[in-house]
Amino acid sequence: MSLEGILPFARTLLDQSVNNGGVAVDATAGNGHDTAYLANLVGETGRVFSFDVQQQAIDATKQKLLDHSLNERVQLINDGHEKAADYIREAGFDGIDTAVFNLGYLPGSDKTIVTKPHSTITAVEQLFQLLRPGGMIVLVVYHGHEEGKNEKQSLETYVQSFDQSQASVLEYKYVNQKNHPPFIWVIEKRK
Amino acid sequence: MSLEGILPFARTLLDQSVNNGGVAVDATAGNGHDTAYLANLVGETGRVFSFDVQQQAIDATKQKLLDHSLNERVQLINDGHEKAADYIREAGFDGIDTAVFNLGYLPGSDKTIVTKPHSTITAVEQLFQLLRPGGMIVLVVYHGHEEGKNEKQSLETYVQSFDQSQASVLEYKYVNQKNHPPFIWVIEKRK
Repeated sequence: MSLEGILPFARTLLDQSVNNGGVAVDATAGNGHDTAYLANLVGETGRVFSFDVQQQAIDATKQKLLDHSLNERVQLINDGHEKAADYIREAGFDGIDTAVFNLGYLPGSDKTIVTKPHSTITAVEQLFQLLRPGGMIVLVVYHGHEEGKNEKQSLETYVQSFDQSQASVLEYKYVNQKNHPPFIWVIEKRK
Repeated sequence: MSLEGILPFARTLLDQSVNNGGVAVDATAGNGHDTAYLANLVGETGRVFSFDVQQQAIDATKQKLLDHSLNERVQLINDGHEKAADYIREAGFDGIDTAVFNLGYLPGSDKTIVTKPHSTITAVEQLFQLLRPGGMIVLVVYHGHEEGKNEKQSLETYVQSFDQSQASVLEYKYVNQKNHPPFIWVIEKRK
């Protein structure tokens, strides 16, 4: 048995957070990998809300879902994730089991289009209100790009400020790797 | 399912590292909790080497082991863990599966007697040489005492310097808790 890498650990957290029939959020659809993963976890009776500001990402995710016949359980939204909670409430849902953010830029795309600390924090703040007790928000932080360092610092101050009576915030990070590998912050809402 | 706290996660790592018949090291016997835990994991055919510089810790650990009939599989050594590798080799062993360090002071004892960065680093360095591929060294870092901050900084520089082709070093830390709670560094030797 070995230590889990960053991406396997993110998947383990999602596995633990959401079951069949659950409600999940992919705050950064990107190439659709996490959206498809969550769509499998929630099953036919569950729902995934998947957001991206780039039409290219929405198109790629849509194709991926169609290829795997997962499209009916996913609502794809070409808008900023800072409005995620509004869309979810408008769809008639008052709670979520998990949300995942891949923070940085869309791989294979324009590296100047990156997630921004302000909208990320707004999104996390609002999604945390919707999160069921015991649910988790998983932030996978890619900070190797130019603005990554600033985003990381802003988010660090934010996640450290969570009231420990409301949530546990865990950092899971490999500290001896070169080239700024991604790491994870998990925000688990207390029961 | 919830995120694992620091001490449960440390136990999970030990569970993953050592099996029946294995060889384990408790570098800081303290009150004997980890020594007894490891003695159960290695079973009757395994061996635990347990070190502490304080006679009080050795006595407490010895009593705990006797109470649970675990004493025959444990070698208790009242000496600094920087000499651990020598004792293990002298006992005829050329490899270990895991080692655990609780860094700080012995709970309920003299808080001026604390682990020191130099001897800790020497111990980790030497035990890493004995560690089998896939084995883990688990450092539970208590840094709330006066010298804790310096110890943490010295060790941080050290663990970050591990060659990533030789080992993965994971940091597992809750970042929104008050009063300097302990956190974990795990050094996993590559296979």
